[in-house]
Amino acid sequence: MGPALHADIAHLSWLVGTWAGSGAGRYPTIDSFEYTEQVEIGHVGKPFLSYVQRTKDAQTGLPLHSESGYLRPVGTNRIELVIAQPSGILELHGGTVEGRSIHARSESVIVTPTAKQVAEVHRFVTVDGDRLSYRVEMAAVGLPLQHHLEAMLHRA
Amino acid sequence: MGPALHADIAHLSWLVGTWAGSGAGRYPTIDSFEYTEQVEIGHVGKPFLSYVQRTKDAQTGLPLHSESGYLRPVGTNRIELVIAQPSGILELHGGTVEGRSIHARSESVIVTPTAKQVAEVHRFVTVDGDRLSYRVEMAAVGLPLQHHLEAMLHRA
Repeated sequence: MGPALHADIAHLSWLVGTWAGSGAGRYPTIDSFEYTEQVEIGHVGKPFLSYVQRTKDAQTGLPLHSESGYLRPVGTNRIELVIAQPSGILELHGGTVEGRSIHARSESVIVTPTAKQVAEVHRFVTVDGDRLSYRVEMAAVGLPLQHHLEAMLHRA
Repeated sequence: MGPALHADIAHLSWLVGTWAGSGAGRYPTIDSFEYTEQVEIGHVGKPFLSYVQRTKDAQTGLPLHSESGYLRPVGTNRIELVIAQPSGILELHGGTVEGRSIHARSESVIVTPTAKQVAEVHRFVTVDGDRLSYRVEMAAVGLPLQHHLEAMLHRA
């Protein structure tokens, strides 16, 4: 047992845990793909949540994507979210909390010189009991904001 | 045993591992502090390294700072580094590799609306056998670039 959740994130306790499941991605410029995924949302007793995610190709089992970052509460109905990706992408989001759903919209996306261009990312996360589902919309490589990822995870 | 290091990061194998030790920080606007630290630098067989760090107050043992991100090689003597921090800060670095030393300079730092302003960060990392030492210089809250952190870790 770790420390108790900090009071400032107690209202987000439904996010904390290890989640595993599968998802699918598509974008006009790439082949569609299916993946398995593991997500760890943790805390150390301070007023933020840590987030680490890894996916594997559903067919080959080879590592596909990963990302990590932190969620900061702003009062009880807003959040800030910062995410780093090995593809050289950093996302800075503002978001809203409604019940057990979060809608995060990128306020700024910056990329390294060798990364693909990403202009905007929206992330939607909903927890229903022991199920966590999410959708990601992305505007990248000159294309408008559109569906990119969808996954359903279960509490592991 | 995990997968073999991807050929594109084989020249950075000296960074990979679990490191633990202690450090000290100072900045004109805060009290000086000492900390213990654990760093995990890992990989999944793809051409990047993952980085997760946690510190604790050296006196109280309470969690202090944490950050996570990824290092991307660009050829054999340059890197890109992306780091997310729970304090709402995202650092995007370009860096050089010389022997077993890395000097990373922030090309862009973005922060969430509730975070402290950070203008520039330089990170110096050197590995000598089983010892990893680093220094961090930072320009923040309107002050010029100056020493902020220094630590010495050992391979755990």
